[in-house]
Amino acid sequence: MAAVSSFLAEHGANITSSDQHSTDPSGGRFLMRMEYVLEADEGSALTRDFGEQVGASFGMNWRISPSRPLKRVAVLVSREDHCLLDLLWRWRRGVLSGEIVLVASNHEVCREDAEGFGVPFAHIPVDGEDKPAAEAALLEALDRAGVELAVLARYMQILSTGFLESVACPVINIHHSFLPAFVGADPYRRALERGVKIIGATAHYVTEDLDAGPIIEQDVERADHRLDVAGLEELGRDIERRVLARAVQRHLEDRVLVLENRTVVF
Amino acid sequence: MAAVSSFLAEHGANITSSDQHSTDPSGGRFLMRMEYVLEADEGSALTRDFGEQVGASFGMNWRISPSRPLKRVAVLVSREDHCLLDLLWRWRRGVLSGEIVLVASNHEVCREDAEGFGVPFAHIPVDGEDKPAAEAALLEALDRAGVELAVLARYMQILSTGFLESVACPVINIHHSFLPAFVGADPYRRALERGVKIIGATAHYVTEDLDAGPIIEQDVERADHRLDVAGLEELGRDIERRVLARAVQRHLEDRVLVLENRTVVF
Amino acid sequence: MAAVSSFLAEHGANITSSDQHSTDPSGGRFLMRMEYVLEADEGSALTRDFGEQVGASFGMNWRISPSRPLKRVAVLVSREDHCLLDLLWRWRRGVLSGEIVLVASNHEVCREDAEGFGVPFAHIPVDGEDKPAAEAALLEALDRAGVELAVLARYMQILSTGFLESVACPVINIHHSFLPAFVGADPYRRALERGVKIIGATAHYVTEDLDAGPIIEQDVERADHRLDVAGLEELGRDIERRVLARAVQRHLEDRVLVLENRTVVF
Amino acid sequence: MAAVSSFLAEHGANITSSDQHSTDPSGGRFLMRMEYVLEADEGSALTRDFGEQVGASFGMNWRISPSRPLKRVAVLVSREDHCLLDLLWRWRRGVLSGEIVLVASNHEVCREDAEGFGVPFAHIPVDGEDKPAAEAALLEALDRAGVELAVLARYMQILSTGFLESVACPVINIHHSFLPAFVGADPYRRALERGVKIIGATAHYVTEDLDAGPIIEQDVERADHRLDVAGLEELGRDIERRVLARAVQRHLEDRVLVLENRTVVF
Repeated sequence: MAAVSSFLAEHGANITSSDQHSTDPSGGRFLMRMEYVLEADEGSALTRDFGEQVGASFGMNWRISPSRPLKRVAVLVSREDHCLLDLLWRWRRGVLSGEIVLVASNHEVCREDAEGFGVPFAHIPVDGEDKPAAEAALLEALDRAGVELAVLARYMQILSTGFLESVACPVINIHHSFLPAFVGADPYRRALERGVKIIGATAHYVTEDLDAGPIIEQDVERADHRLDVAGLEELGRDIERRVLARAVQRHLEDRVLVLENRTVVF
Repeated sequence: MAAVSSFLAEHGANITSSDQHSTDPSGGRFLMRMEYVLEADEGSALTRDFGEQVGASFGMNWRISPSRPLKRVAVLVSREDHCLLDLLWRWRRGVLSGEIVLVASNHEVCREDAEGFGVPFAHIPVDGEDKPAAEAALLEALDRAGVELAVLARYMQILSTGFLESVACPVINIHHSFLPAFVGADPYRRALERGVKIIGATAHYVTEDLDAGPIIEQDVERADHRLDVAGLEELGRDIERRVLARAVQRHLEDRVLVLENRTVVF
Repeated sequence: MAAVSSFLAEHGANITSSDQHSTDPSGGRFLMRMEYVLEADEGSALTRDFGEQVGASFGMNWRISPSRPLKRVAVLVSREDHCLLDLLWRWRRGVLSGEIVLVASNHEVCREDAEGFGVPFAHIPVDGEDKPAAEAALLEALDRAGVELAVLARYMQILSTGFLESVACPVINIHHSFLPAFVGADPYRRALERGVKIIGATAHYVTEDLDAGPIIEQDVERADHRLDVAGLEELGRDIERRVLARAVQRHLEDRVLVLENRTVVF
Repeated sequence: MAAVSSFLAEHGANITSSDQHSTDPSGGRFLMRMEYVLEADEGSALTRDFGEQVGASFGMNWRISPSRPLKRVAVLVSREDHCLLDLLWRWRRGVLSGEIVLVASNHEVCREDAEGFGVPFAHIPVDGEDKPAAEAALLEALDRAGVELAVLARYMQILSTGFLESVACPVINIHHSFLPAFVGADPYRRALERGVKIIGATAHYVTEDLDAGPIIEQDVERADHRLDVAGLEELGRDIERRVLARAVQRHLEDRVLVLENRTVVF
């Protein structure tokens, strides 16, 4: 910490925010995030010097991310519109630290909403027999749009390992349960059958293992015995959209550090 | 509802609280709970007449529970004292709708607390080789004390099917996770490893299937990446004691109706 | 309760939901809400008979509200769009038990959103010197649209006593604080100055006394010292829209009973 | 930050936790808290050097607090025992970063509890006519016990300005409402009368202005129309004890920084 903050101070960077975490005070991993303002645009020199003067000598795993230009975001969606619309609204309000440059879907239903907000809409139907072709088309669309973050906003297709290996950006999914409870399909129906008193939603990075990637954010609401599956789904939509919006925003602000299968959100 | 409320009105009962729930408006099961005050003590006549005049003709599954005398409660505990002490406090304050008549434990550590509150303490050690004898001793202690509800307040022994079949009262357990996540041992360590952002606790009726009985109450707290397993356990204790206290209180007020593997808590 | 449920049973109504509350078991006020399904359309006969056979003899204050047609709703808004858009979305999804028939505003900024959802937009500017004329125009617009509920979705004008006396429908407001804290202007700035650790929002019926009408719903979120006024406002928007949406929905379902200056929400 | 962390690194201190906050990135106040482990006991040299080499040159307002010995805590209480007992339990469990060395009360009711936990109990009755004498006795008791933190755990006497000026340690109070709502007496009754849907509790440093000192922690629970004043009080006790316990623990860990009338809790 001394080395990094001294380096930044010497290079005229004004540190505006700083967070640290040790997984174990004696011998664990040390994670740190600093946010700074540079008067002149000396970003590239600073990056080069940092690696030579600090990063290498401490064996750090490090990254410097400029906050501008904003990261380019694609939202993938199926039929449910609530998470998509929430992200589009936040973006229009100017409170999302990213640019939504593409909405892609295996259905046509959200086209009008996306285009109404001025965002290009790509309809990429997924045919059971030729899923590889659909994934290839999706990869190409993401690539062409220069996407730096893909958000699965209730996209109801499971992405193949091949897709995840090829895609050049992180992928965040919203799962409509309080993970690790109710992995997989139909979580609200299963929540009702199990008789839980609280339901939740989970935003996580997508990995090969279904609903098992690093969790970024979760939230819950109290459920009532008066709610049937449709009632739980409706209540759940409010949870899903705010959990996903928070996770996406934290990621775009470079606040999420992944450590094995967990995250530290500064 | 008309038949029950008319019957009560005709018998001079003043209904002070009433709740209903239909699992399905057309053809589902109908659950109802009414609380009433009877001027004179005509309870037994009312019970007899109710069965003849109302219960039988509607094919009801019904029960009339007097609110006095208070139900007799045993608390089973191992080494952790927080749930036990919380129940003893509430009882001393007069806000628990039951009488704690016995504390039983496989360890000696909570003896002083129990006896300090004036409650008999039974030390029933559980020897790996002769668990049936321990369970028999426990059954006898519960029976001798006339226990009508047994509360597992962090009792770290799994009760056998034989015990559950023999015990003459409902058994409520507090599980230190947000079920159905993290069934079984060491839930806080597993929560940390999975990287969840929220931890919880669950109070449920004990059945043969481990941590799978009908859920009565759940609650959660937000967990921070700064918390290690001990930190999660400490945070969890606050959740466990309030979840268990609420569940026990609702049960003692006869507010919990079990329907298959779920509960309706009026 | 016996009289009402017997009356409904005799008239072929199937009670699907029922709630009761006594302000005091001995001698307090008794509130009851029943929801029922009538096979044939005998609504008007039932209403007439109820008054004669039940309502009058018990001195009840009673009302029968058909659930169809849906109530006609106007949303009043100024510059902030989040509460308006949330209501429009829920309406489009078909989960709002009302029809949004009018959006009225003292600004033009929300016209495009309202019209994009197919709802007429009335721009009624409020001129400091001639506020009575603006209120008259608003009253007329509400009247012409046959509005049965007016929702102030961050409408930043104080309605006069004269307006409230003339308007033919209930008015629900969302106040951006946890009332009774921070009545009046600029609640987020004042919350920051007071250093509260939790912020909230309150939906209430509008009365002559500013922010003092019966509260229908409230909710909160934990605030962080890192949030400045703009950060609190952004966090608050999420609370405001869900609190308002819940309050409007409960009102439209006829679940809100007002008793003096309080509500019972069944 | 660079200067402090470099200084600590050079003096062999291993920084285990670090937090910073700027009230305004350009020209605001900068707050920082670092927690470190020193191999050898060089604390006093480090403190002297820090002032000379770092503190003075940056015009810092700084403090170094050893984490051992634990701070000495007095708990002041009247008749309600829940907050006191909660603190005593946590202390016995070894999870409170302080030593409870005194319980003082204007009543006798909590003597047995305090002494049962092995803590001296001082009965200092407050006579309306001679309150100054009572306060003098209290000051002397705190002084004699070497108290470094006084906790008002539902102590129902207002401390005079003279007392607060004389007392040599910070004083934390639990107020049984969500401040700034319901300052002063009888908050639960007033909450019921106002018809709020959520009740809360607030822990704050005591200042001359009643219930207006810097807030350390707040929490809330949803209240139901079925709860009368006694029901709200009972629900409130659970909120009060956890809010106070958290605030006291944060203070004892030196995590609470006061800035004007607000706190930053790292």
